[in-house]
Amino acid sequence: MAKNKVGREIPEVYASKFGVFEDQFARKPEYKRASGKAVAMLPNESKLRDSIREVILETGLKDGMTISFHHHFREGDQVLNMVMDEIAALGIKNLSLASSSIANVHAPLIDHIKNGVITNITSSGLRDKVGAAISSGIMENPVVIRSHGGRARAIEMGDIHIDVAFLGAPSCDHYGNANGSHGKATCGSLGYAKVDAEFADKVVIITDNLVPYPNTPISIPQNHVDYVVVVDSIGDPKGIAKGATRYTTNPKELLIAEYAERVIRETPYYKNGFSFQAGTGGSALAVARYLRNSMMRDHIKASFALGGLTGHLCDMMEEGLIEKVLDTQSFDIGATESLKKNESHYEISASFYANPGNKGAAVNNLDFVVLSALEIDTDYNVNVMTGSDGMIRGASGGHSDTACGSKVCIILTPLVRGRIPTVVEHVNTIITPGQSIDIVCTEVGIAINPLRKDLLEVFKDSDIPQFTIEELKNKAYSIVGTPDPIEYGEKVVALIEYRDGSLIDVVRQVKRDE
Amino acid sequence: MAKNKVGREIPEVYASKFGVFEDQFARKPEYKRASGKAVAMLPNESKLRDSIREVILETGLKDGMTISFHHHFREGDQVLNMVMDEIAALGIKNLSLASSSIANVHAPLIDHIKNGVITNITSSGLRDKVGAAISSGIMENPVVIRSHGGRARAIEMGDIHIDVAFLGAPSCDHYGNANGSHGKATCGSLGYAKVDAEFADKVVIITDNLVPYPNTPISIPQNHVDYVVVVDSIGDPKGIAKGATRYTTNPKELLIAEYAERVIRETPYYKNGFSFQAGTGGSALAVARYLRNSMMRDHIKASFALGGLTGHLCDMMEEGLIEKVLDTQSFDIGATESLKKNESHYEISASFYANPGNKGAAVNNLDFVVLSALEIDTDYNVNVMTGSDGMIRGASGGHSDTACGSKVCIILTPLVRGRIPTVVEHVNTIITPGQSIDIVCTEVGIAINPLRKDLLEVFKDSDIPQFTIEELKNKAYSIVGTPDPIEYGEKVVALIEYRDGSLIDVVRQVKRDE
Repeated sequence: MAKNKVGREIPEVYASKFGVFEDQFARKPEYKRASGKAVAMLPNESKLRDSIREVILETGLKDGMTISFHHHFREGDQVLNMVMDEIAALGIKNLSLASSSIANVHAPLIDHIKNGVITNITSSGLRDKVGAAISSGIMENPVVIRSHGGRARAIEMGDIHIDVAFLGAPSCDHYGNANGSHGKATCGSLGYAKVDAEFADKVVIITDNLVPYPNTPISIPQNHVDYVVVVDSIGDPKGIAKGATRYTTNPKELLIAEYAERVIRETPYYKNGFSFQAGTGGSALAVARYLRNSMMRDHIKASFALGGLTGHLCDMMEEGLIEKVLDTQSFDIGATESLKKNESHYEISASFYANPGNKGAAVNNLDFVVLSALEIDTDYNVNVMTGSDGMIRGASGGHSDTACGSKVCIILTPLVRGRIPTVVEHVNTIITPGQSIDIVCTEVGIAINPLRKDLLEVFKDSDIPQFTIEELKNKAYSIVGTPDPIEYGEKVVALIEYRDGSLIDVVRQVKRDE
Repeated sequence: MAKNKVGREIPEVYASKFGVFEDQFARKPEYKRASGKAVAMLPNESKLRDSIREVILETGLKDGMTISFHHHFREGDQVLNMVMDEIAALGIKNLSLASSSIANVHAPLIDHIKNGVITNITSSGLRDKVGAAISSGIMENPVVIRSHGGRARAIEMGDIHIDVAFLGAPSCDHYGNANGSHGKATCGSLGYAKVDAEFADKVVIITDNLVPYPNTPISIPQNHVDYVVVVDSIGDPKGIAKGATRYTTNPKELLIAEYAERVIRETPYYKNGFSFQAGTGGSALAVARYLRNSMMRDHIKASFALGGLTGHLCDMMEEGLIEKVLDTQSFDIGATESLKKNESHYEISASFYANPGNKGAAVNNLDFVVLSALEIDTDYNVNVMTGSDGMIRGASGGHSDTACGSKVCIILTPLVRGRIPTVVEHVNTIITPGQSIDIVCTEVGIAINPLRKDLLEVFKDSDIPQFTIEELKNKAYSIVGTPDPIEYGEKVVALIEYRDGSLIDVVRQVKRDE
């Protein structure tokens, strides 16, 4: 066992392969970028193929190769299951699956794993059913969990080499120019898919909306695409994008948001031209709403919002409160519609967004990010991956990327959820190291990471209630008691890569009651 | 000597290195794409540097390396000379210059060549002064002439590896997001520069217009940029883009255009959704003007125009006659303004445009291209590179790329220019092989390449005057006499690469009168 700098025991076999986490800035790689293969296309050739089966055969997909999918269709995705069923029917085995994330709708993967079609997985997240199956130990090889930026880094540095990318696209022309903002199953940005298309050897666009050449806007360009297949349906709109999210009325969430918004305003970074990212949770949306009112009152305009974007932020852009939005993933219909119509809504790749290995990611220019947590511990380490039962159910996402890049990373969390404390002694699984977290906002007040002496000084006269993180933990434990430790087995079911490629944690199999 | 398939003698030393031209579709490369180096940038680091000199030192530029520039500023460019002067002052020698093209304004290069700062050049073109100097034999190593698509191919296949790209940009933010459509020295599309930025090891953006982050639209993304330098001026607008070009009133040019436009209309490709490219010459602009009237009358709409774009075609898009334009280079202010305001005006890279090695270039989807010629011979081979005195003064450009990709390639040329025949027995220098040329339009009528039996059939009852190419040549010779052969020396001053990387011709030193 090797112990990393956040105190986690990493089995030697993995530690020697990946290295162990030392510091958020420990690695500053210098490298030659990876690249995919290309086969030239002559003027009289066609990229159109009649079926998924035909195109799989043409790509030369073989046992042991790596395939990828994007997760822009979220719970509405029909592409991954459709392609995996054909691959399984063709008898291809022992594949590595390098999806940008895996949703609940992908539960059929469980059978493909059991049948040996898939023997390795890397992903940002594993939702309930697939996560539970992995946590129960159905795979021999541990899943590698990567952040969105970490996945782009792994692809560009050659840690992940994609042999065939199967990329669903809501609109595409016969030559492969594709976007996500027009069509039947619109998902907005194709930010994750752009990376796969650029670096994979073979790229297949699967669409239910073939449009005349040239399809614009061009999210994925023709010169990155080998084949185009038209199918009846690539996604269920209901599962792809939520409608406009309703604002929370939960008083605890509103209180957390109120503190967070005051925190933002009381820092010196809140001024004309500031930038921020805020996600989809009830509290995060409420922060944006409060911030909107303050910005109007204070005549302050943000230079950009980054995301993972919601329609709320796009509305703020329409209102003139935000100059531009940079969008690697459109979370709801509001964001998807905005990308379609507003030229200040700019689609970016996951590498542009958050890759710590490239020549400069957008997260590096963030002033504020507002993030959630399943758990945060007294070292400020955050878990967004495993539930209170120790089972994998979350996603790494852009959590560690934005936390590291931003000037102020704010975690929104209630002290407890039900009978489960959220502020704890040690989180089950570390996704983001405490050094990246600056301020925790709860319903009783905030805690400032002692590493941020500058922020302690800024808030020394603030009337926002302030506690140490230990005090917050004690409050949580005083409400629901000290949690029982989860009983894990020895088997490692997932490796948690920090965005730089080192291992920040592992997830072990959960012991079942016999 | 090796003789290639268009009858040109290629010295063995070059033939063995590049291979010799066989056929426009002889090579269909399968390869792993080249890639550049990257150094990760941490959140607290800056890309801004104070001077050209400082940034040259930081890039680690050394004797023997390859540097690149783009030619979007044409005769208004100030970047190349500014950077070359600093490089020379630093005493760096023996560099390879891989500019996308070289203009007259770059005449100071002649001294840098003579002083050994530059010892190799690859470029699309060499205009008057530099071309004449090269033709007179000032370099030991021959210049390698590449088409726009061929240059992108060479970069992506690793034939050209750019160590440092110095890219002027009319607008840029501190992180390197750059475009050509906003600022003081706007040039429109940055289509050539996009390729350099993607594949070079070190990328320096030089701008006279630093704007707040994030700069959009993003032609060159931050993750491809290492350094940003702000200078007073990068280009002279008067030299960058011509104003709206006046229509020709030359009766010969109008007659040629009239025949060409009728040729387009009489082919079966002239129908709703057709596509075309037309350049900047007087006849080409007149073709577009006539076509505009016909399309209005016939209620025919083009799906796209490709370019090398003029404002004339953008106006046709505004009028609803063209659905979209794809722009790798904006020739005039009309095109530059259109890119800025019209979202159906889409910027593309030179690789997307014309790279014959990628997964499918835009030229492959062209129905018509209308091109000029300095000379065309009885095998339909075209010269756009050397003048009637044998001196290099032209540019390969997209000539061979569009000629090869399009369904119908039309050459517009008068029979003679002054006392010089244009239709000749053998062109001085072959840029585009005859097999890519379909129809020649002159002021007396047209000649159809006998390889295009389908077109001979289409036009068999046309009342456009038709000749064989020999007949056109004879007419030309009967007007101005048979031209005297140019007396070349033995020294090879330029290698003409076909777009696929093989040698289609060489240019030899012109013998000076002693």
